[in-house]
Parts: sequence; C-alpha cells; structure tokens
Amino acid sequence: MRKDHDQIDLLDRADTSIAPQRNPDGTTEGDYELSRRDVATILHTVDRGDQQQLLTLMEPLHPADIADLLEQLNAHDRRRLVQLYGQEFDGDILSELDEGLREEIIAVLQPDVLAEAVRDLETDDVVDLVEDLDEPQQEAILEVLEDADRVAVEQALSYPEHSAGRLMQRETVAAPEHWTVGQAIDFLRSAKELPEQFYHVILVDPRMHPKGNVTLGKIMSSRRDVQLQDIVEEVFEVIPVTQDEGDVAYAFNQYHLISAPVVDENDRLVGVITIDDAMAVLDEEHEEDILRLAGVADEASLSDSILAAARGRAVWLGVNLLTAILASLVIDMFSATIDQMVALAVLMPIVASMGGNAGTQTMTVTVRALATRDLTAQNAMRVMLREVSVGVINGALFGAIMAGIAVLWFGVPMLALVIGLAMLGTHVAAALGGILIPMGLERLNVDPALASGPFVTTVTDVVGFLAFLGLAARVLL
Amino acid sequence: MRKDHDQIDLLDRADTSIAPQRNPDGTTEGDYELSRRDVATILHTVDRGDQQQLLTLMEPLHPADIADLLEQLNAHDRRRLVQLYGQEFDGDILSELDEGLREEIIAVLQPDVLAEAVRDLETDDVVDLVEDLDEPQQEAILEVLEDADRVAVEQALSYPEHSAGRLMQRETVAAPEHWTVGQAIDFLRSAKELPEQFYHVILVDPRMHPKGNVTLGKIMSSRRDVQLQDIVEEVFEVIPVTQDEGDVAYAFNQYHLISAPVVDENDRLVGVITIDDAMAVLDEEHEEDILRLAGVADEASLSDSILAAARGRAVWLGVNLLTAILASLVIDMFSATIDQMVALAVLMPIVASMGGNAGTQTMTVTVRALATRDLTAQNAMRVMLREVSVGVINGALFGAIMAGIAVLWFGVPMLALVIGLAMLGTHVAAALGGILIPMGLERLNVDPALASGPFVTTVTDVVGFLAFLGLAARVLL
Repeated sequence: MRKDHDQIDLLDRADTSIAPQRNPDGTTEGDYELSRRDVATILHTVDRGDQQQLLTLMEPLHPADIADLLEQLNAHDRRRLVQLYGQEFDGDILSELDEGLREEIIAVLQPDVLAEAVRDLETDDVVDLVEDLDEPQQEAILEVLEDADRVAVEQALSYPEHSAGRLMQRETVAAPEHWTVGQAIDFLRSAKELPEQFYHVILVDPRMHPKGNVTLGKIMSSRRDVQLQDIVEEVFEVIPVTQDEGDVAYAFNQYHLISAPVVDENDRLVGVITIDDAMAVLDEEHEEDILRLAGVADEASLSDSILAAARGRAVWLGVNLLTAILASLVIDMFSATIDQMVALAVLMPIVASMGGNAGTQTMTVTVRALATRDLTAQNAMRVMLREVSVGVINGALFGAIMAGIAVLWFGVPMLALVIGLAMLGTHVAAALGGILIPMGLERLNVDPALASGPFVTTVTDVVGFLAFLGLAARVLL
Repeated sequence: MRKDHDQIDLLDRADTSIAPQRNPDGTTEGDYELSRRDVATILHTVDRGDQQQLLTLMEPLHPADIADLLEQLNAHDRRRLVQLYGQEFDGDILSELDEGLREEIIAVLQPDVLAEAVRDLETDDVVDLVEDLDEPQQEAILEVLEDADRVAVEQALSYPEHSAGRLMQRETVAAPEHWTVGQAIDFLRSAKELPEQFYHVILVDPRMHPKGNVTLGKIMSSRRDVQLQDIVEEVFEVIPVTQDEGDVAYAFNQYHLISAPVVDENDRLVGVITIDDAMAVLDEEHEEDILRLAGVADEASLSDSILAAARGRAVWLGVNLLTAILASLVIDMFSATIDQMVALAVLMPIVASMGGNAGTQTMTVTVRALATRDLTAQNAMRVMLREVSVGVINGALFGAIMAGIAVLWFGVPMLALVIGLAMLGTHVAAALGGILIPMGLERLNVDPALASGPFVTTVTDVVGFLAFLGLAARVLL
C-alpha cells in the first residue's frame, strides 16, 4: 500500500501504522479518515492507561485528525483520552475542534496544559477559540496569555463578530512603495521575526496605506535593481476591517486572492487575511446555507447535545406546523366536496407534494444565485420569466401525466382535467413563490436561506389545495 | 465614498467610476457587484458602438467581474458586447465564465481573438476550459496552442475527469533534499523561468520522490548555511495524480495546505496543486450538494437554457410523482375510513408534512456529516440513537400540540389521540429514514446528496398516512 501521508519522514518522527491512509482498492471513500480499527487501537490503549503507547499512536496525527477523533468518541472516552494525553494536548487541537465541544474539552484540561496550549497559538486562532466561549472560560484563557498577545486578542474581539478584524492576523510584512527588490531581500533576510506564513510583501505609502502586493516568488526571481512597484500583482484587493467575513471569502474566491491587506477606517494597514482563513469561512458559510435550507438553524455539528439539536430543529418544525395547519384550513373549506368524492382526498397530496418540490427547486436555485451574486436587479426579470417558463413546461408535463393516471385510476375524465389544471397552476405558483420570496427576504436583509422554506411551502400548499379542490367543487359537483 | 478596489493605482491604469465599490451605507449587500447603473452605462456604450469608451469602461474590471457581467446580459447584448470588445477579450474571461456560456462565447469570438486569448492562459486553465467543450471546439482550441502547451494539455486530459491530474499545474519548483538555504536562493535567483504563482520549494530525492515543502518565507528568513531539510513544513501531504478532486479539496481544507505536490503511480513528482484551485473545487462541490439536495441535478447556473433547466428538474419531479402516488395508494386503502370521517382528510397532510420536514432535517445533517467525514462506522450507532431521540422529543412535542389543536377543532378526543400518536411514529420513522437511507446510499457508492430525498420522502409519507389513517380505522370507527 502506498503512503500518502509522509509528513513525518523528514522530521524523523516515529513511524506508525495509524496515520490516515489511502484505501488499497483505490476507491476514494475513506481517504483521510481514521479506520475503525485505528480508533479501536487508540481506545484500547486508553483503557490500559498506557500513556507512552498513546503518545506514539497519536504522534503522526494532524491536530485536525485528533479533533475529528475526539468528535467521534462519546463524552466518557473523550475525557479519558484527553486526560491520558496530558501535556501533549496542543492548542491546534482546540482550534480544530467543533465549537460545541470546545467548552467541554477546556473544562477537562488541567489549567497548566490549557495555558501552554493556548500560548502556542497565533493570536488570530486564539480569537477564533475564545469568541464563542462563556465569559469565565474566556477570561481564564485571556489570563494565561502574555501581555502583548492578550492586548492583541482583546483588540480583535473589539471588532464586530464575523468581521474581517476577527479573521485577520495582525503581523504583516510591509515595505515602502519606492523600495527595490534588493532592499526587500536585504530587509527580509535581516528581519528578526517574520510571520509564520506570509505570501506577499505589502507595499505601503508613508501613511501606511496599502498600495500593492508583491509575491515572494517575484522578489526571488527579479534583479536587485527592479522597483517593487513594477512587479506588483495585477489583482489587489484591500479589505476594510469591518467587512463581513462572508464578503471577504467571496472576494478571495472571486478574484483568486492569496492574501489581502486589511485596513482601518483611515485606510491604514492593520492586518492581513490569508486564503486558508477565507477557505475556512467559505466552508462554514456553505455548511450554514445547506443546513438552513433544510430548516436546521442553530446546529453546529453531530456533537451538539440531543436537547440542543431538538430545540434547534423544533423552531422550523413549529413554523411548518403553522403553514401545514393553514393548508388544512383550506382543505376544511372543501370538506363537503371531499365528502361527496373521496378520490379528491386520495389525489390532493400529490398536487401539494409536486408543487412543494418544484418550489424548493426554484427557491434553492434563487438562494444560491443570490449568495453568489449571480442574481441581480439587472437580470431579475429575465430569471423570473425563465423560472415561470420552467414551471409552465414541467407543470404541463406532469399535469398531463397525472391526468392520464387519474382517468385510469378513477375513470372520471373531468377529475383528470381538474388535477391537470391544478398541477399546472401550482407549478407556476411554485416558480413565482420560489423566486419572489427569497428576493423579497434578501431585500429586507433577512437571510433567504434561513426563512424562505416555510413561506414557499405555504404558497405551494395553499395554492395546490385551493386550485385542486376549488376546481373540483366547480367542475365536478 | 471609500475606494476598496484600487488595484489600478500602481499600474497607472485609467481611473474610472465603474469598478465595483462598497455601498456608502456600509451594508454588505452589493459588495463586489456591478451596479445596475454601471451595467446600463456599458450597454449604452455598446448601443452607440463606441469601442474606445467600452475599452475604458471595462479596463478596471477583473476578468471574473467581466464574466459575471456577460452572464447577466441576454444573449443578444452579450454577443454585441463581445464583438465590440474585440481584441481585448482575454483568456481569463473564458476561464471565469459559467460552463454553460463558454460554448456560446467561443462561437462568437473571431478565430484570431480566440487564439490569442487561449495562448495567454496557463495550461491548467486551458484544461479546465476545454474539458467540457464539444469535440470540434476542443480541437479548434488545441490547434492554436503552441506545441509544448498542446502536449501538456493533452497529457492532462489523459487523466480521469475530476482527478488531481486535471487540477494540477505541471510547472513545479523542486530542489534536492540535501540543499542548503543558500543553494536554494542562488538557484531561485538564477532560474530562467519560475511559475507565475508558487509558495513552496518542493524537496525531492534523486528519484524525484517529494520529501517535504519549504516555504519561500522560511527560505527568506533563514541563514544561508541552514539545511532545507531542517526548515520543512510540519504538515506535508502528497496527492496521487488519480485522486478525486473532492478529496484533494478536503485535504487542503482539513490540513490547511497552501500547495501540495502531485505524484504519479511511481510516486514521482509530476505537478503541484495550489490552494486557490482547491478552494474553487470546494466551492463547486458545495454548490452541487446544495442543488442536489433540492433535486436540481444537472443545472450549472442561471445561464442554462429554459429547456435544459426544465429537463434537469423534471427527473426529480418524476421520481417525486412516483413516491407521491405510492403515498396516495396508501390513502386509497383507507378511502372508506375517510368517507366516514372527512376530518381525517383535513388533518392527514399535516402528519405527512411534519414527517417530511423532520426527515429532511435529519437527512441533511447526515449527508453533510458524511461529506465532511464526521459520520463514520465508529460513531454511526451513537448518531442514530441521537437522531431517534431528537425524533421522539420533537414527535412527542408536536404530537401533543397537534392533539390539542385537533380536539379544539373537531371536538373528538380519540382523533386527538390518533393524530398525536401518528405524529410521534412518523417523527421516529423520519429520523431512522433520514439517517439510514443516506448511509446506505453512501455504502452503495451512490451520492447521498443526489438520491436520498425521494426515498426519505417516501418513507415519511407512507408511514405518516399509514399510521394516521390506520390508527383512525382501528380506534375511531
């Protein structure tokens, strides 16, 4: 079997067999995933209380993998593992952990282990770690930081939540805009301390306004007398410190940025955001969108407690109950009609179900197009016409199919006409609701991913039942 | 108003007022988005056929913004703009365009403009561009490439679709593992041609096996006599050339990689993947997941034609029609019962709707947990117990609420009992279906995001109607 994870070779660490490995059958499933056997081996070691063996087994694992491992254990095993792991528990594991588990783990850690773990972290990671903690845990962590770091973290926390200020690192590598490549190289090679990761030298004017980015690669490959100004990157975005992190991630993705300077309200350089942070935000935002579209609002992960998960989902179920009752009130209006022809009760859920699905399709396309800025005032009317056309085509198609089925099933041609027309009308309503509701919510500054679902379902249910039963009452009886 | 997009300052380009700007009210909506007025100005210029003015207006725009602009126009305006833009149309715009529009734009471009546009692109971008084109268009583009580039593109196309081989760039910066910092600096500074973007020097052994990554920043800040081996990055992932791009993106996100070497079947270095490509893949995969969960399978974007969109969505609507008919067959079994008590017809959609929503919630959480590798054989049983517990809690809660409503509405206590119990049972079925169906599909190597929805809905509809009407038939009549 081939070894893909050989980060350990050069570092001469202990080689063990539990680093995540590629499946021998070449399938992608299970890539980068600890096998069940590996987890069992680790748990067995914990059972035996063999700290030396545990350290050997855990050494090749990336902090992200250790965090995943902890997330997969139950609370009891998790506590025992963390306690046995002891001094080796480092800050990066905390950073990688699901927010829902951080408080639990921090409570388990010995104060001195926690202090050392936190002191190892870059300040932007500490910010990310403490911003969601309870007040007492937050203070416990701030207390163990060195003075300079604590000030940096407190400063970052003074920026709004989810802003560029929380995301950025404060250490930047800047150079006067009139420097040459030679001056930059001499400066970099004599600098006492450079950030752990940096990709650009930021050119600034005397008032510290960022003016351009020069990649290290370009500096390396240019003659010493070349002006830095002449080799700046063509694409250069400056991020305001109060900008929402979602917009930051969008800019990185749209303009293929690697790093971007962050400026305060006076346009002065205060930090830098790198693509790995933007990628993490993009990932989180997508995750949030997917869960919100399904009515799972406040759930962070599988490690949330049962009660927390139930509560988070109950909100949307409650809203859905109201819309379902609204739809039932419509049916109730026609109970006399149903009483006369029970086939209506049999068929009516089909109309509502098809309408609901068509509405969800349009709504999802609309929510995504809004999130990616593909749907704008410029093309809204054309997109709406497109969606209505799609609704007419599929409504007519499935209306005709369903009419055929209805006539075969119940032998009533007029019933077939009624369900066919009702399907068509419901599909058009679904298209209109699916596009107008998210657009309206966006205009009201409400997240369309979060709130569109219940409204769209209400529209399709009410229109579906009303069209089907209303037409039936007029035509059939 | 502040100017965030001042990439033009240093390059001394024409300053115009249409670069995307931040809203003066400080809201994030509309960041990085051309205003309606800007688009109108551009269209008016196209109407007047004023090429000089058009070039001035378009100059400050990033290719990604120009692509977005084209996507928002109708086909007629799009063609006129591209034709008037003429020679200035560059390859990056093609790269940024939605796949659905590329063929249309390529057909509009003059052969010499297309040739020049394509020759400017890096080979990995050409691969991305041609892989989805028709055979004739693909050949037209390959023909205009220089020989070396054409060979490189054809080689990349020989790797499987969606593999690391398609994603990587072939130009790498590698150094023998025994080199010092000084040797690396001398090599880099004397190298004739370095890749446009690179972040690491890859250490290789004599057989070209990658052994470690050294960042340019570390090389810059270390003494000349330091061994490169001693300053390699702690995290180092090697990507097999056949690995699925989704797994590549996962590794970048999980391990915070910036670039990773790609190796062939003999573990020899053949290319490098950088984080911006991985970020684009992550973005696409998320998009696909969101749309698939909503039953919008094959739709690329808003620029798809009406017929293509209707066809893509009809597949899922067709499946949904079958499951809806299945549910109706269950209702039909109880038509005699409904005939005796029409209130059942009024209430039954509520049971199905609540079950469907609860099932969608669990299913979405499960699909996401599978995608992020958080749900594994290790914790499957615990997650299932958790979901069923959530189902019992919310089922009992909303069952009780609905029982209260039913008794107030219809005044039949036994009806209240029936709907309460049916809600409870349906929520439990929804939890089981929502977790077991995606897990089963994953095990069968079927994308759970694509196929779970119809099955889960079938389960909740059938169980919902069966429980409610079945209980009613036994208890009420």
